Amino acid sequence: MKFTKQHTDPASKARAGLLETAHGNIETPIFMPVGTIGTVKGIHQKELEDEINAQIILGNTYHLYLRPQTDTLRAAGGLHKFMNWKRPILTDSGGYQVYSLAHRRKIKEEGVTFASHIDGSKHFFSPEKSIDIQREIGGDIIMAFDECTPYPCEYGYAKKSLAMTHRWLKRCLKYHAENGGLYGYEQNLFPIVQGSTFKDLRIESAKFIADQDAVGNAIGGLSVGEPAPEMYAMTDIVTDHLPVDKPRYLMGVGTPVNILECIALGVDMFDCVLPSRNARHGTIYTAEGYYNAKNARFKDDFSPIDENGACSTSRNHTKAYLRHLFNAKELLAGQIATLHNLSFYLWLVGEARQHIIDGDFLSWKNEMVVKLGTRI
Amino acid sequence: MKFTKQHTDPASKARAGLLETAHGNIETPIFMPVGTIGTVKGIHQKELEDEINAQIILGNTYHLYLRPQTDTLRAAGGLHKFMNWKRPILTDSGGYQVYSLAHRRKIKEEGVTFASHIDGSKHFFSPEKSIDIQREIGGDIIMAFDECTPYPCEYGYAKKSLAMTHRWLKRCLKYHAENGGLYGYEQNLFPIVQGSTFKDLRIESAKFIADQDAVGNAIGGLSVGEPAPEMYAMTDIVTDHLPVDKPRYLMGVGTPVNILECIALGVDMFDCVLPSRNARHGTIYTAEGYYNAKNARFKDDFSPIDENGACSTSRNHTKAYLRHLFNAKELLAGQIATLHNLSFYLWLVGEARQHIIDGDFLSWKNEMVVKLGTRI
Repeated sequence: MKFTKQHTDPASKARAGLLETAHGNIETPIFMPVGTIGTVKGIHQKELEDEINAQIILGNTYHLYLRPQTDTLRAAGGLHKFMNWKRPILTDSGGYQVYSLAHRRKIKEEGVTFASHIDGSKHFFSPEKSIDIQREIGGDIIMAFDECTPYPCEYGYAKKSLAMTHRWLKRCLKYHAENGGLYGYEQNLFPIVQGSTFKDLRIESAKFIADQDAVGNAIGGLSVGEPAPEMYAMTDIVTDHLPVDKPRYLMGVGTPVNILECIALGVDMFDCVLPSRNARHGTIYTAEGYYNAKNARFKDDFSPIDENGACSTSRNHTKAYLRHLFNAKELLAGQIATLHNLSFYLWLVGEARQHIIDGDFLSWKNEMVVKLGTRI
Repeated sequence: MKFTKQHTDPASKARAGLLETAHGNIETPIFMPVGTIGTVKGIHQKELEDEINAQIILGNTYHLYLRPQTDTLRAAGGLHKFMNWKRPILTDSGGYQVYSLAHRRKIKEEGVTFASHIDGSKHFFSPEKSIDIQREIGGDIIMAFDECTPYPCEYGYAKKSLAMTHRWLKRCLKYHAENGGLYGYEQNLFPIVQGSTFKDLRIESAKFIADQDAVGNAIGGLSVGEPAPEMYAMTDIVTDHLPVDKPRYLMGVGTPVNILECIALGVDMFDCVLPSRNARHGTIYTAEGYYNAKNARFKDDFSPIDENGACSTSRNHTKAYLRHLFNAKELLAGQIATLHNLSFYLWLVGEARQHIIDGDFLSWKNEMVVKLGTRI
């Protein structure tokens, strides 16, 4: 994998880059739609390519491990083939879901035991096990197994947890170095900076992560309930210490405003379920602000869902039609809304990239965050 | 509207024809996907065009009357514009849903009062009201308001009901003749043959309907629970008495086998929720037979959903992937299965048409019905 920093914004830490992987190139900054269990909910792979133009998608290790299970993914030749997706895939380590979704988890130095949220069956994830599962899934970018601390978090717990996350990282790196990819192409392991919302821990972690000299680095443990200013403050501190010539991935972030603010802080990669999950509940994001598509005021509003929308669905269907589909609980409601929101997110990061290249990112960003944060 | 009978099968009553409407041409025999409430469940209009190549879709008057309601459809300029569908639309009269779905219905000579299945609100449909709603929906083909008798049905009730259905038809024809379309294009009213499973009543009805000299004719009251041989017997009798130079629409039919058998009996148009509803429950129809995509035996079956499938989705996704999507209750399961089944139905009627043109329909049909009826 190769990362080329192509442009740097003169007025912020924003960068435009190119990430080259075995399954194709990614122009950064980029947003990665979340394909939880081998599908971006409600969206065809064909639409992901043609309508949304997703350059890379995410797979969730915890979910894929439980269903379809790794033996099936391995028999298929990896997730790309299993789900018929030819572009890059990034997988998380499974850690976040173990902490947020699984039951009866017990964290020890060796790893984590937990019960499946589906059938209560008992499982064990360790750094080595997580890397092994991610090898079987076959993502182009894979993540270190860490502990994602909750918010708020006691300082003592965060410090202890961070030390273990760093020890786990060493085990991940060792195991990954000793065991290549299964399918004949490169898999790239990103370490994750943790440290909760504590400045000193974040700096300590960022320095430790930077020292590993990995091909790319991630920032975890944010967007877990902390106020946005804290998210920005931690991101700002961390990007000051991560290598400038490596891609930086801020995990699980966020709203359109969060994404622009964190691009300004030097982040290159984002993922979040928010645009797709909120789409299914009726929230439509546009460059002029967001609105609730279920609102009765749209009953006879025959203007497009988003007249400047990047995908044809947003321009060709009306607010009245979408409101009707939600009102009638039709499947197409969530599909259209998801198509729109994801294509909007991809448009947004593409615009950010263009403004970085053009050298006027910061002023554009400052105008946009006002509009994006407005309920229309 | 113009119907041209282009070919007749020498060995059966099957015909190939061309139906020209204000929104485009339809090659018959044809299957019409059901777009209940302004959407074919789980399928984009773009996919209906590009993947399934639907030439005409159905809208349900009862459902559209309740949601989004006709004032909205009228304000939108009709259902075509509301749902952004440029090809032909056929609407039913609402009668079937009033009898099968609505609550507390009371049938009188004047019309039917009923309570909405959604909120219990009281409504009244008459022949004139049904035509009025269908004018506001704006389908290219609209249906007479009839009573669809249940199966089994007492002879006396069926006879009395049929007489009323014929009186209602006269009112529909009169109202339709006196009130043109609302949107500047032609709407074509099809009368409906009823008579339950009684030969004499079906003949009486078919003759009465034929005498009205409408642009096309429908056969109703079948596929309501009667054995297939009864469905075929009634269809056979009715098509013997309907004009040969007018299109014949068999309402609500059916399985792939039903469709081929009824094409052989001289039917030109079909609609049914079966391929889409069963898709959402995992039934996949192919030219070699049908199977349940949820079956555990497909866990590691990486052969295509249908290797000879007409749409790319069927060829590019595997049985293992589809089984996984159903197992994980993912939205994409129903979407892919529906795309497949509808494109299969359209392929099937297209093949039937080609064999009618080639002059070997009957032998092809006889081979196909064996395969189509096989669980694989």
